[in-house]
Order: sequence, then C-alpha cells, then structure tokens
Amino acid sequence: MTADVSKLLSLDNPVFKAYLFYSTILGLKILSVVFLIGRQRFTKKIFISPEDLRGKSAKVKTDDPDVERPRRAHQNDLENIPVFFMIALAYVLTDPSPWLAINLFRAYTVARIAHTFVYAVVVIPQPARGLSWAVGYGVTWFMGLMCIKAFY
Amino acid sequence: MTADVSKLLSLDNPVFKAYLFYSTILGLKILSVVFLIGRQRFTKKIFISPEDLRGKSAKVKTDDPDVERPRRAHQNDLENIPVFFMIALAYVLTDPSPWLAINLFRAYTVARIAHTFVYAVVVIPQPARGLSWAVGYGVTWFMGLMCIKAFY
Amino acid sequence: MTADVSKLLSLDNPVFKAYLFYSTILGLKILSVVFLIGRQRFTKKIFISPEDLRGKSAKVKTDDPDVERPRRAHQNDLENIPVFFMIALAYVLTDPSPWLAINLFRAYTVARIAHTFVYAVVVIPQPARGLSWAVGYGVTWFMGLMCIKAFY
Repeated sequence: MTADVSKLLSLDNPVFKAYLFYSTILGLKILSVVFLIGRQRFTKKIFISPEDLRGKSAKVKTDDPDVERPRRAHQNDLENIPVFFMIALAYVLTDPSPWLAINLFRAYTVARIAHTFVYAVVVIPQPARGLSWAVGYGVTWFMGLMCIKAFY
Repeated sequence: MTADVSKLLSLDNPVFKAYLFYSTILGLKILSVVFLIGRQRFTKKIFISPEDLRGKSAKVKTDDPDVERPRRAHQNDLENIPVFFMIALAYVLTDPSPWLAINLFRAYTVARIAHTFVYAVVVIPQPARGLSWAVGYGVTWFMGLMCIKAFY
Repeated sequence: MTADVSKLLSLDNPVFKAYLFYSTILGLKILSVVFLIGRQRFTKKIFISPEDLRGKSAKVKTDDPDVERPRRAHQNDLENIPVFFMIALAYVLTDPSPWLAINLFRAYTVARIAHTFVYAVVVIPQPARGLSWAVGYGVTWFMGLMCIKAFY
C-alpha cells in the first residue's frame, strides 16, 4: 500500500469530507435522542436521580416503559456509532472507491436515523427496527473487513 | 474551503494540540469514574457478577443507590464524550479561531469534570448537574453545527 | 516537540498502521458481542422490547442472568474501548517507540478479547476477568499520561 495519507486526510478528498459530514450528523443525532427521553421524563414526571424531583407527583423510576424506550434507542446508538467513527475513519485510509464509500456512509446515517425513528418516535412493528439496525451493522462489518485486509 | 489539513493536523497548530490534550484528559476522566464506583462497591460489598463475591456478606445487586449514582455519572460520560471526540476533531478541521476553539475545549472539559463532581462526589442540588451537563451539550452542538456548515 | 504529524499519520509509520489494525479488531469485537447476547435471547426467548416478541412463550425481561452477562461484557467494552480509540491515536502522535507502542496495542487487544471470553463465553472465576480488565485499563492510563506530558 503506497497511498499517501495526507492526500486521503484532505478536504479535497470527497470521501474524507463525507466522513466528517456524516459523522457529525451521527454525533448530533446521538445528542438529539436526549430530547426524546426528556419529553417522556417531563410528561410523566419520572426522573433518574432524587435531586431532579420537583413537585409532589415527580418520582424516581427506572422501569417506566415510555422512558425506557428512547433510552434503549440511545443505548443502541452508543453500542454502534462510536465503532462507526473509528472504523469509517480507518476505511477512508484504505483509499476506497469514492462512490462506494460515500454511499456506505449515507446508508449508515439514514439507517441509524430510521432506527431511532421506528424505535422511539413512532413505534413500527418489527422487522422495521431489526432491518434498520442490520443495515448499519452490516456496513460497519464490511468496512471493518476491508480495513483488516488493508492494514494487516 | 481551501484549508490545508496537514497544517491543521499539526502539533504546530495550537487548536489541534489543545484537542489532543483535552481529549486525553476527558478519556482519563471517564476511566477515573471507575474509582468512584469501586469505592462504593467495596464499601457496601455490592457487586455486579456472582463470581466477584468474596465473603459471606457480599452480594449481587443492581439497585443500590450509592453504587448506581456514580454508574449514572459514568453512563452520562459515555453518552456525551465519544461524541465530543468525533465532533471536536471535525471542528479542528474547520480551521476555527484558536482563541474560541481552545476555550470551547476548555469549557467542555471543566464542565464534564464538574458534572461528575456534583453528580457522584459531593451531591449538589440541581441545577448544578443540569447546568454542567448543558455547557458540554451546548458546546458540542455549536461545534457540530459549525462542522455541518463547513463540510456540507 | 518538532515531530512531523504527516510522517506519524502515515501508512509507512508501523505504529499508525498497527493502531488502525488493532482499533478495527476492537471495533469488530464490540460488534461481535451482539452474537453472544442474541444467542441467549433466542435460546431463552427473552427480548428487550414488546415488539420483538413472537410466539406465546417469548417475553420481555431485563433481569435474566444469562442475557445480562454478555450485556455487561458489552457495556464494559463501551466504557473502555472508545477511550482507547482516542487516547491511542493521541499516543501515536507522541512519536513513541514502535516496539513499545505496537506491543501496547497488541496487549490491549488481547486483554479485551480475553475479558469478553472469561466474562461471557466460558465463565472463569476471578481474578481472570479483573486481570484482563486491568491490563487494558493500565495500558490506557499509561498512554494517556504519556500524551498529557507530550501535549501539555
């Protein structure tokens, strides 16, 4: 491999620029799930720590289904997206086909947003959540295997 | 955008150096929360897995408030800091004002350390935790929006 | 510090190449824990969300010990490996001895795989899990302290 990393890690490389763009979207997407959780907490007055309680009807509870649902979506993001940040960056350095790489990043981002949507905004029966999860999972595995091959 | 990434990703760029410094502090800060959790576990003899038990009074429990408090601080770090790692790196590549960027990294780091402190070292009533969380959250959103604008 | 980052972030730098290789392995390793969790879920018919249930005997439960065990291994990965991604990358930029750096990455990777193995594949009594965790934890702290020294 003789690829010049300084050419790959350049804003003239559309793959790297797409990586930065979609990773930022994914980062802000993780942060946004907090609004879904907060909406449930304030509607149902269910909080995570005793110092958060205000008013008599507020209580601490960790098993309310409406609060736990967006929290599970959040947790699933944490299980998947930081791995994407790392592997997709390594993948940029394998000098992939721009068309393929940019579409993989795009598919990943759309799939993760869809995952949150069907999990915690409008609950859609399976296999909606399973499929959206699987697209992101498959994309990450594919990129990871390409990296193993390139950097072994 | 004509910024030269090899100049931005250089140790001569004070913004990149500050990114590396504060991100390392934040990484070690996540690891340090383990001491807060461990202190509670060994004081109260409450463990997470049956193979950890030693002595008759030790038990497995997942709802002890003194153990769960630092665990929630830890979890909040995981929800926020890996996103900072990604977005702040992308932000370095937008070639921001060094003064602004370095102070954002500094504010983020101080806010996250304060968050853990008021959550799990000395419990201070709200809005202490809410505010420290909001500073970090706001900084990440601000940097993220700058990245979207730069890399769109 | 006069190290030239473009030489360090190069595929001609064996330390950076090893970083990319071992980080990818660690990323795929996090993803692989999902198989351990899924195997338990489908064997015991215990799911995380009501829309996942199919068949009369399937149920939602969050305290089954056989499902929670690989989930705890997964969670421990999330607490440790994203921090490694960040700190090990910063460590590459401290221009460390290649022999030392590559062996630290290797030790970290082996320790984390061993951690999952003794936690969730074949449960081995303590201190197996504690030791494998401690190797990874110690390696990350060591690299982090080197970074603080270099980037202060």
